[in-house]
Amino acid sequence: MAAAPVWSVDPRTGKQREQVAVEATAEEVDAAVRAAHAARGALADRTVRAAFLRTAADRLEAARDQLVEAADAETALGPVRLTGELARTCYQLRAFAGIVDEGAFLDVIINHPDDTATPPVPDLRRYKVPLGVVAVYSASNFPFAFSVAGGDTASALGAGCPVVVKAHPDHPALSELVARVLRSAAAEHGIPEGVLGLVHGFEAGIELIRHPLVAAAGFTGSVRGGRALFDAAAARPVPIPFHGELGSLNPVLVTEAAAAERAEAIGAGLAGSMTLGVGQFCVKPGLVLVPAGAAGDNLVKSLTDAVSDTDAGVLLDHRMRDNFLAGIAERAELTDVDSPVTPGAGGEHTVSAGFLTVPAERLARAGDHDLLLEECFGPVTVVARYTDDGEATTVLSRLPGNLTATVHLSAEEAAGEGRGAELLAELTPLAGRVLVNGWPTGVAVAPAQHHGGPYPATTSTSTSVGGTAIERWLRPVTYQNAPEALLPPELRDDNPLGLPRRYDGRLER
Amino acid sequence: MAAAPVWSVDPRTGKQREQVAVEATAEEVDAAVRAAHAARGALADRTVRAAFLRTAADRLEAARDQLVEAADAETALGPVRLTGELARTCYQLRAFAGIVDEGAFLDVIINHPDDTATPPVPDLRRYKVPLGVVAVYSASNFPFAFSVAGGDTASALGAGCPVVVKAHPDHPALSELVARVLRSAAAEHGIPEGVLGLVHGFEAGIELIRHPLVAAAGFTGSVRGGRALFDAAAARPVPIPFHGELGSLNPVLVTEAAAAERAEAIGAGLAGSMTLGVGQFCVKPGLVLVPAGAAGDNLVKSLTDAVSDTDAGVLLDHRMRDNFLAGIAERAELTDVDSPVTPGAGGEHTVSAGFLTVPAERLARAGDHDLLLEECFGPVTVVARYTDDGEATTVLSRLPGNLTATVHLSAEEAAGEGRGAELLAELTPLAGRVLVNGWPTGVAVAPAQHHGGPYPATTSTSTSVGGTAIERWLRPVTYQNAPEALLPPELRDDNPLGLPRRYDGRLER
Repeated sequence: MAAAPVWSVDPRTGKQREQVAVEATAEEVDAAVRAAHAARGALADRTVRAAFLRTAADRLEAARDQLVEAADAETALGPVRLTGELARTCYQLRAFAGIVDEGAFLDVIINHPDDTATPPVPDLRRYKVPLGVVAVYSASNFPFAFSVAGGDTASALGAGCPVVVKAHPDHPALSELVARVLRSAAAEHGIPEGVLGLVHGFEAGIELIRHPLVAAAGFTGSVRGGRALFDAAAARPVPIPFHGELGSLNPVLVTEAAAAERAEAIGAGLAGSMTLGVGQFCVKPGLVLVPAGAAGDNLVKSLTDAVSDTDAGVLLDHRMRDNFLAGIAERAELTDVDSPVTPGAGGEHTVSAGFLTVPAERLARAGDHDLLLEECFGPVTVVARYTDDGEATTVLSRLPGNLTATVHLSAEEAAGEGRGAELLAELTPLAGRVLVNGWPTGVAVAPAQHHGGPYPATTSTSTSVGGTAIERWLRPVTYQNAPEALLPPELRDDNPLGLPRRYDGRLER
Repeated sequence: MAAAPVWSVDPRTGKQREQVAVEATAEEVDAAVRAAHAARGALADRTVRAAFLRTAADRLEAARDQLVEAADAETALGPVRLTGELARTCYQLRAFAGIVDEGAFLDVIINHPDDTATPPVPDLRRYKVPLGVVAVYSASNFPFAFSVAGGDTASALGAGCPVVVKAHPDHPALSELVARVLRSAAAEHGIPEGVLGLVHGFEAGIELIRHPLVAAAGFTGSVRGGRALFDAAAARPVPIPFHGELGSLNPVLVTEAAAAERAEAIGAGLAGSMTLGVGQFCVKPGLVLVPAGAAGDNLVKSLTDAVSDTDAGVLLDHRMRDNFLAGIAERAELTDVDSPVTPGAGGEHTVSAGFLTVPAERLARAGDHDLLLEECFGPVTVVARYTDDGEATTVLSRLPGNLTATVHLSAEEAAGEGRGAELLAELTPLAGRVLVNGWPTGVAVAPAQHHGGPYPATTSTSTSVGGTAIERWLRPVTYQNAPEALLPPELRDDNPLGLPRRYDGRLER
């Protein structure tokens, strides 16, 4: 049987552009994983891998024009957004290089013998070691930042783990280009090119998660695809950690006082956030609790105006477009659901933004309207009008896990008068990031970032963005009574590498 | 149908002592989980829960005589060992109280806005919050330290998570007693007694892992039981973290030079370690690579003498005794397997210690002898005689994951001459704790401890002993642009709680 071709497709026309590759066979997946595994020794030196990450950023920047053009041809996300996303991706690679240099992620803890403990404590020295080959399943909607050179890859390489990427079928040509840049950056530092494998094809993705030498996986995508891979990872003879970011509704609560204070600004801000990138962000606000009454009406009016002004856009592929249109149609049919701006087909290849409204009461108990509590990918949101605080609380309590939860407060509430702190506490169990008076789209790369949340937002308690994302690819090991002469330098008393550490209970930096 | 009775059994006679309880129905499990969930608010204050842990230790110590007697009647582990284990358990409760006081586990990271980042960074403040109700599956072999008041419970309560314990059927009466002590300690601090639930019964354990309000689980036990629960945790509509410690062979490598230097001491040390607690430790050395030739022969001679002198002992229950005898018989039948001291039935209710020998060559490739690479619970170990370093390396490379791996080196090797560092590096992928010139039995409670290892030693990358065990029950949450007035005190700029934290990249303590 001939290998299945992998086509690059233009989402603006739905037409095939070129054949990029063929889908990887089981043997090719095996070869990629074995090559990655064989390259792990070349990542053992932190200095080398930090330099590799920086060179990768430099080389990606040097190829910017070519990469942005290739990305735009396959994703239709536009050169402005894509140039920004590439810059973010390079910033992220350098940020992980800095984290690798500092070495705090090694989490060094040293205890000298203590006979007063029960039982007595011998000499114990702990740090973290890389898990091994990491499988990265890249996302459609961030062809740079959550793809071949994205956060999963950058953090895994930073941790010392070689990577095999399963390319997203929405940008196979770009994936090949980026992989080539990363491999040549590796070669500049004497790291075998196998350190970054790339495979195409659905079946190849399944082979990859089942491969005995794959030690962990990162995933960004749909609940269905992510759950299938999570299940496969858990069902292995040797289960492996599966860090998947699957789906999120990203609820927003607008208080009565906030709506009274600045209905127009909130409506306009919401329109901008929900239509950003044609609504194809995992942190798109998908459910907005707005008070019933005049202030809330003003907010909806402002939202209506702003969304009406939004140009139709091209989704990442035509399957998504079909799903978006079907999802909208199914939701719009529900009792008491209105659409002040009807989202739908813009032209043959585009979609137009819109939003739905529903009385929050309809979401307060299980029923047909639960469909509105599921993510709908694309430029649409659901505005639920609540009549009192209790109703809003009830709806929030029914939500599955989320990446983000947002509250819009009045100036007085933000200053500590009223229910502000209470609402923050109410939102905290729902999500991994809680925002006040902002919009969840836009995920900064920073040590304090947390991009993850209760299932189905994430399949683990980890983050896929920010400094602590590196923790996903490591495991601790403790040496007991190992003589100084045999210890890795990270664990020696004299701390030759100058690592931050916890030394007999004292935090040292 | 009448509820199934739960009996306390005397392992010294195999006779039922008393009926302790009945197996919990699904409704009773639900009630226990709901009561625990309802108690979570009472654990929100770190000061309260640290005090609770200390009071729990005090009250357990106050009840020592009664508890040790109850434990001995059900486990036959003897008052000396059990008194020590209770002391360890109380030490551990207080150690976690100290960790809760210090607050480093909250992992506070604060980033102020930074417009120079790509993309710009808003105000982000991250810390960790408790996951919710933790299910704890207690172990047979540590009726105090890995049971109702053991490390899983102590670390979960310390993290702010209520606990429902599935009692081990080998010590149900003790489990009830200990739970009562913990509940009364909770009551002293105004914490509802439901904060510590206790259920009996196999089916109850399954109900527990499937309960929607259970947010994570800790387990210590067999590969079969642990894997079944792991699978159930992964198959939930909302999967939850399952931190299970399942099984471990705990390989030991004795170098030629070490055997030449101190064969007798190593043989005697091994005998002590493998027979400690009648061989019922998860860190019992189960496979020992000893060089062929005269030095290794001396080691085996010393081991023979010491093991021959060991008294017969009582295993924790008669099913274990049956499994031990069957496991020994199956192993002893294999080609080229000898038993210088034949382990087996001591008397009607006891077992006698022994060990098997086999040429390491037999373990170098897949075959019937792979049975020798599986843990056999009880006082037995396998001594594999290797003819050269390569053969030892090959056997090590075939092992599944372990809690520990140990190397015995000569004084010169320990000082850095020869292959010491290389061997340490070779053992590191095998285990979570690597020991030099010691024995793996005895797991100190210390910040640098790591009691976990690659599967099947552990189902996650976590530890069940030591300070970092608390990390299992937490998830991070980040607040974005939350006004100071609404932030939890842990995240305020002025650090009113004096927490160690990472503040704009600076480590503060």
